[in-house]
Amino acid sequence: MEEGSQMRGKYVADISSIREAQARINSFIHKTPVLSSESLNAVSGRRLFFKCECFQKGGAFKFRGACNAVFSLDNDQAAKGVVTHSSGNHAAALSLAAKLRGIPAYIVIPKGAPKCKVENVMRYGGQVIWSEATMQSRESVASKVLQETGAVLLHPYNDGRIISGQGTLSLELLEQAPDIDTLIVPISGGGLVSGVALAAKSINPAIRVLAAEPRGANDAAQSKAAGRIITLPETNTIADGLRAFLGDCTWPIVRDLVDDIITVDDKEIIEAMKLCYEILKVVVEPSGAIGLAAVLSDSFKKNPALKNCSNIGIILSGGNVDLGGLWDSFRK
Amino acid sequence: MEEGSQMRGKYVADISSIREAQARINSFIHKTPVLSSESLNAVSGRRLFFKCECFQKGGAFKFRGACNAVFSLDNDQAAKGVVTHSSGNHAAALSLAAKLRGIPAYIVIPKGAPKCKVENVMRYGGQVIWSEATMQSRESVASKVLQETGAVLLHPYNDGRIISGQGTLSLELLEQAPDIDTLIVPISGGGLVSGVALAAKSINPAIRVLAAEPRGANDAAQSKAAGRIITLPETNTIADGLRAFLGDCTWPIVRDLVDDIITVDDKEIIEAMKLCYEILKVVVEPSGAIGLAAVLSDSFKKNPALKNCSNIGIILSGGNVDLGGLWDSFRK
Repeated sequence: MEEGSQMRGKYVADISSIREAQARINSFIHKTPVLSSESLNAVSGRRLFFKCECFQKGGAFKFRGACNAVFSLDNDQAAKGVVTHSSGNHAAALSLAAKLRGIPAYIVIPKGAPKCKVENVMRYGGQVIWSEATMQSRESVASKVLQETGAVLLHPYNDGRIISGQGTLSLELLEQAPDIDTLIVPISGGGLVSGVALAAKSINPAIRVLAAEPRGANDAAQSKAAGRIITLPETNTIADGLRAFLGDCTWPIVRDLVDDIITVDDKEIIEAMKLCYEILKVVVEPSGAIGLAAVLSDSFKKNPALKNCSNIGIILSGGNVDLGGLWDSFRK
Repeated sequence: MEEGSQMRGKYVADISSIREAQARINSFIHKTPVLSSESLNAVSGRRLFFKCECFQKGGAFKFRGACNAVFSLDNDQAAKGVVTHSSGNHAAALSLAAKLRGIPAYIVIPKGAPKCKVENVMRYGGQVIWSEATMQSRESVASKVLQETGAVLLHPYNDGRIISGQGTLSLELLEQAPDIDTLIVPISGGGLVSGVALAAKSINPAIRVLAAEPRGANDAAQSKAAGRIITLPETNTIADGLRAFLGDCTWPIVRDLVDDIITVDDKEIIEAMKLCYEILKVVVEPSGAIGLAAVLSDSFKKNPALKNCSNIGIILSGGNVDLGGLWDSFRK
């Protein structure tokens, strides 16, 4: 079992590894603000606390985990650099963390990845290596890079160091808004919700942790229902950050500590994005708006088990989205 | 001279009236966060501190002044309500402040005002009365409303209570980022920059206060050059919040306390908006992005007098902008 994913108690991370991560990354990350809106409280019928990880360095929470993983490496390991294959925010986050440590980051990016996310990788000095869009091609290109460079592979979520880094978000948020009784967290591979749930339930065992998932990539909801990891032959959602599947490190935490999964469709995600832009004035990507979409969905509002979720922390997980359509409209 | 615009020392407001305003409005306003970005520091060659007034209630700093003015009224005055004529953020802010005090707000809105700003007025329960777009029509409709209701007219900027409310922004910002040596503030009628300059220079006389103005509505720059209030026959700028002219309450403060005015064109404003959305992840309206546009302009960068502006506070003044083009692009 590789360094950093050794068992800590039952899982690959725990409150101690999360507190260690906080001490390790605190001087590098932004302490992101928590926003609130009376208008959105009124629309939802609850008090909402928006944790703005779109303002995190690299534009997403991913920098927490990447930074913790990169600064966990010993000097010999680190010197050869880090590798990942990712079309998204983890790639940019890892590039930035590597840049801060002064080591190379090799990023395998599948063709067709969102332009703004590729630009982020380049802005932070990541070395882009293109692959085909299939997972097979991504993995084979990545293992070729590994052989040639001797660099360390850092998986975007199935890794205790990554999960511990993401968990620091809970520590911050529950200090900023101690009244929170419920957290709503986007779920994809499960790295964020695992870290958030481990930390939050350690601080307050009564806190409820809900995951929000797109209907077109509902592997986590299916996995919870089946009691084992389910993967899907394909996914179909506007939320490009939420198309990954649970891994063997995240699944046990999701199985045990996530109280429920709220599924929403893309139309609800876009409506929630509109509210984030127009009421909160925050730029979120589709994946980032899904927590608000979940709170406003009928399946949430009508669920009697969620009736006493009064003070809800919503993670606006990222803000990397192509806004070309907006700038075109100004040029008219 | 009417209540609230009585002379305080040399001007209609001063540090005491601003501190009084802060005590009066503190429980109603959001303490807006200050964001920073290494990427934008690198682009500008300075350290930038972004005061996010787009996250203020009503989506703009205007709520500070409106709230102070509304809660300064005695009960008899207040009972009859408040009136203003405005196509913009002051109207929404006044509606919200009046709603909080439980009194009516009559808002005269010229035809053709931005849709999102009219919606804000309605959301906060302001009573909309339409006028033609000319200033003559706006004023005559407003005075008719005044006669019929006995309500108090609250000018958007030429009023000591409004200026004092806007000044509270300085108190907050200089506490959040005490290293700031320069402030860059959008200028239109001058209410915001007057309050900000009065407070900031009282706290730190060495601080530099710069105003940012669109080239197509450069009455303040012309006024400073001429040494008297200059108005323009027409304005032409995308920044719909920056088309007003200085008033007799704001002009003396702008004349004496604003160190320089940086003029930028609409193309620079749109480029700065893009950076706010894409790097900071903050939704700003064109007027709100003008401070960043000023810092990035050649006339700023090449001005030797501004070379030692190292730690710059930029006021992102508001975020009320029609984003229809963006949502259209998602529907494709």
